[in-house]
Amino acid sequence: MSESDSSSNHSDRVLRSSCVVRVRYAETDAMGWVYYACYFQYFEVARSELIREHWKSYRAIEEEDGLRLPVVEARCNYVSGARYEDELQLLTTMRVHGARLRFTYNVTLLGSEAKVADGLTVHCFASHDGKPRRVPLNFIRLLEK
Amino acid sequence: MSESDSSSNHSDRVLRSSCVVRVRYAETDAMGWVYYACYFQYFEVARSELIREHWKSYRAIEEEDGLRLPVVEARCNYVSGARYEDELQLLTTMRVHGARLRFTYNVTLLGSEAKVADGLTVHCFASHDGKPRRVPLNFIRLLEK
Amino acid sequence: MSESDSSSNHSDRVLRSSCVVRVRYAETDAMGWVYYACYFQYFEVARSELIREHWKSYRAIEEEDGLRLPVVEARCNYVSGARYEDELQLLTTMRVHGARLRFTYNVTLLGSEAKVADGLTVHCFASHDGKPRRVPLNFIRLLEK
Amino acid sequence: MSESDSSSNHSDRVLRSSCVVRVRYAETDAMGWVYYACYFQYFEVARSELIREHWKSYRAIEEEDGLRLPVVEARCNYVSGARYEDELQLLTTMRVHGARLRFTYNVTLLGSEAKVADGLTVHCFASHDGKPRRVPLNFIRLLEK
Repeated sequence: MSESDSSSNHSDRVLRSSCVVRVRYAETDAMGWVYYACYFQYFEVARSELIREHWKSYRAIEEEDGLRLPVVEARCNYVSGARYEDELQLLTTMRVHGARLRFTYNVTLLGSEAKVADGLTVHCFASHDGKPRRVPLNFIRLLEK
Repeated sequence: MSESDSSSNHSDRVLRSSCVVRVRYAETDAMGWVYYACYFQYFEVARSELIREHWKSYRAIEEEDGLRLPVVEARCNYVSGARYEDELQLLTTMRVHGARLRFTYNVTLLGSEAKVADGLTVHCFASHDGKPRRVPLNFIRLLEK
Repeated sequence: MSESDSSSNHSDRVLRSSCVVRVRYAETDAMGWVYYACYFQYFEVARSELIREHWKSYRAIEEEDGLRLPVVEARCNYVSGARYEDELQLLTTMRVHGARLRFTYNVTLLGSEAKVADGLTVHCFASHDGKPRRVPLNFIRLLEK
Repeated sequence: MSESDSSSNHSDRVLRSSCVVRVRYAETDAMGWVYYACYFQYFEVARSELIREHWKSYRAIEEEDGLRLPVVEARCNYVSGARYEDELQLLTTMRVHGARLRFTYNVTLLGSEAKVADGLTVHCFASHDGKPRRVPLNFIRLLEK
């Protein structure tokens, strides 16, 4: 796949994280379920949580390191749907593939094994003005622990 | 009211505009109607249209004039509700009150007199770094025609 | 004001609640701040929390009582703005005015006294098919404690 | 791939449509670009347009035929990014694969060849209460013209 563009990658190391989001009324649609695009907002919450937990806040990455993490690819598979006030658990993983970060997300109802959705996002590092950047070394080191 | 903070205002002059938005599925909620916060997105579309029609694009104001138009107050009254695929007509007015712009919005179903909602937003001019700015003279002149 | 439509109201009794929301990247705009309409999503989170804490989940009100709480009026004053990853504290109050519920919201940065915004929403009770309903008695009783 | 689950499909027939959306300020994020999840809202606008143009409004499908079109899979590749007030052209195709509809989307800046993004969504037909349904015959016939 296109996001695997390096032979010397770190794909055998993985960071993991977990978080819970509660569905807002704003996120439901006239079908009564969570609108499909909102899962990508949940994915954002989940990967921010992972980065904050293992490294530092994404805001600090933007402000201190002058780096951005634009999305280059996003996917979601919808298995069962979620309703207003449901608590969704997201299990997130992160791997480095060459110059790219690859996050996967697994969404279940909290306290249940039943899958609601799963998905992935692929990101690159970029400078403030959009130029591509390498994965920061201190970020790589997190994966080597 | 707080937005009327100048005796030498231009509140007797008004710019008017009209636009139509079609309700997206994303904007509905589990009640089957447009989610209440989405009307403020429609208001944004309507005032961008008014500014573009009478002056220039709000993007040009940001880029060429280095100005922002942050919202200081927003209100909406909900009269009847709107559904997916409804075409909503927004009639918009703009007045200058001292250093502030005041927009009003009247929302009806296209081709009908039935009111869906009405509202207002109040804005000030600010520089890129958030400092208050006067209303640009060439903008004032639009109102004097 | 229009939302005060009864002499036998319960406006002297008030329910209070507090909650914290963390700003998502999705909720910021190109100015770098939280987009103005998103505060109304935070207000929704806050009043759901208040209702859940004092009575039961709003979802149960919809499903068990067959009731809806459509918004009839919404307002927000924007004082200072919030950024990505800020934790916002919302202090919420609820009063009954005749057949209407009136919520107020006060938004500050968590751990600070600095006001970010305040606002209000007014709601009525309605049946599944949109007909107006009285405030449920067991809800009134919450206010009499 | 999972969405190709029938040998007797109609994948050699395709419906095409085109539409334009203008980027709202609400859809931008603090990076200054359109937030990645918003492209899925644009995809919704584009496929509603295609269905309305070739058959009837999706709202009529819900109301007259008692059918829903839940999303089972969604993907987007982000090539260059879009800014506030950009006009985006979406070229959309639709194919039937067994019991599923497959839409593809190609997003460019209006009046330019430069690709902004592309993506796909896969949908099934379901009844009001979520049970799977076949593709309606009168919908199939649209593809046979």
